[in-house]
Amino acid sequence: MIAVDWGSSSLRGYWLDDAGAIIEQRTSGRGILHCEGNFADVLAELMDGWPDRTILLSGMIGSRSGWIEQAYLPCPARRADLAAALHLHHDERLPGRDIWFVPGVAVQGAGETPDVMRGEETQLVGLDAGAGVAQVCLPGTHSKWARLHDGAITGFATAMTGELFALLRQHSLLGRLMDDSDTFDATAFAQGVQRSGDAGGLLHHLFGVRALGLFERLPALAAPSYLSGVLLGHEIRALADTSAKVHLVGSAALTARYGHALQLLGITPVNAPENLAARGLYRLAQQRGLLG
Amino acid sequence: MIAVDWGSSSLRGYWLDDAGAIIEQRTSGRGILHCEGNFADVLAELMDGWPDRTILLSGMIGSRSGWIEQAYLPCPARRADLAAALHLHHDERLPGRDIWFVPGVAVQGAGETPDVMRGEETQLVGLDAGAGVAQVCLPGTHSKWARLHDGAITGFATAMTGELFALLRQHSLLGRLMDDSDTFDATAFAQGVQRSGDAGGLLHHLFGVRALGLFERLPALAAPSYLSGVLLGHEIRALADTSAKVHLVGSAALTARYGHALQLLGITPVNAPENLAARGLYRLAQQRGLLG
Repeated sequence: MIAVDWGSSSLRGYWLDDAGAIIEQRTSGRGILHCEGNFADVLAELMDGWPDRTILLSGMIGSRSGWIEQAYLPCPARRADLAAALHLHHDERLPGRDIWFVPGVAVQGAGETPDVMRGEETQLVGLDAGAGVAQVCLPGTHSKWARLHDGAITGFATAMTGELFALLRQHSLLGRLMDDSDTFDATAFAQGVQRSGDAGGLLHHLFGVRALGLFERLPALAAPSYLSGVLLGHEIRALADTSAKVHLVGSAALTARYGHALQLLGITPVNAPENLAARGLYRLAQQRGLLG
Repeated sequence: MIAVDWGSSSLRGYWLDDAGAIIEQRTSGRGILHCEGNFADVLAELMDGWPDRTILLSGMIGSRSGWIEQAYLPCPARRADLAAALHLHHDERLPGRDIWFVPGVAVQGAGETPDVMRGEETQLVGLDAGAGVAQVCLPGTHSKWARLHDGAITGFATAMTGELFALLRQHSLLGRLMDDSDTFDATAFAQGVQRSGDAGGLLHHLFGVRALGLFERLPALAAPSYLSGVLLGHEIRALADTSAKVHLVGSAALTARYGHALQLLGITPVNAPENLAARGLYRLAQQRGLLG
């Protein structure tokens, strides 16, 4: 089968054998924001030479701005619920192919502020977090904190941490005080994580980045790491259950940074394997009976 | 005397009589960022026709990016401390004039994250908050929350609320979902203030603005008011002493909005008169013995 994790800014395709092992893997910058609506052509190019009939797509490709909008499933969302909701599409530009879309998952109770995920639900299907309750963090532009129970997604919350970090660096007064490099300063990062526990709240702690700079107590080169620590500290303190370990899903650079912050706060991080999207899509195909 | 509140983006000049009453008032966009370093020329133009010898300047004009950098006074800062620290400058382009700079005030204890103000200390001198302890909020791009004791500034904290609101509207994913108008929606604002008290923290509540929009539970026209409510709610909950009233100092539009949020949180707002900077500068000149 062919598994595709199709996000806003990038695209990852996997050619899998009958046991779910990756035969070949391709990535591109053709996220849905960079396809000009020609999703079938982009997909055809991505899977050139991969002959399999069954194709599963997860991520923003199923959003309103994507190829075919998929409704959100409510929580709790089990693997069987996601598999049953797979939507089959046939496209004349891709003859002989079955294209299956994975739905997103939403928190949407009557008294609740809603929340949404697209793509992360598939990574969570690919994760082996064991029986019982587990908490998972998927860091990114919009970090997701999910709770699982026997593998079912029972609830989650999104934090705009990555987007806010980028905004503050590029457009704020704080950014003007910062060095452009991405050097990681572990001491400044730890100071930021520590700071996030003080009184005064995030809006006050952000101004502290500037004030520390004014008094030459935070070098320009260390300021981005300090800011990152402040933001991650606030995210983790507000969203983590500090009594349990946290499964970290994502790129090595980002999970390393989150793992570091979690440890500073006395929480044990557990790094998940890479390519959980491929494994999750394989499991959904298997559950739906699409494989052999 | 002549009193000038000289900030980053704008400039307010006052011609005061011997009793401190305003004879004439002028404003311009020639904040320190828009003077190209020609501060004497800008000042000469501002006070054209105002013959007084004594001129007091407060605000960012005394910062590193201003005319002559003034050191910060530590807290507690009394009126007498500020008056004693006034710095006299004579400029050959302004013969016959005594130009006095007001210092800023800083929190800068050894174990503390520093904080700074320039200009607000003068507004606080102009405020009549009574004897004993008082709390004052000066909303703005960088809101200040100050504590006074018998009029002395005993401590303060800055929140980056206004800057963050502008950043999020102009550059974030949330901004794309919002209407450009500045229509105030009291219901959405109150929902945002309410939301700020929920679990999950500010980074999560920000993402909620998007999710509410996706489920058509927050119209584009109401989204800026909701976001404003979320941010002000977080600022107030983190920085206000909820058991005491809050003196509000600033423009009518901004203090009205903060007053609204304070009342929703059960805190009594007290609106200060306008032109506190002029009154504060007059009191500092008086204290220093510069008047008649």
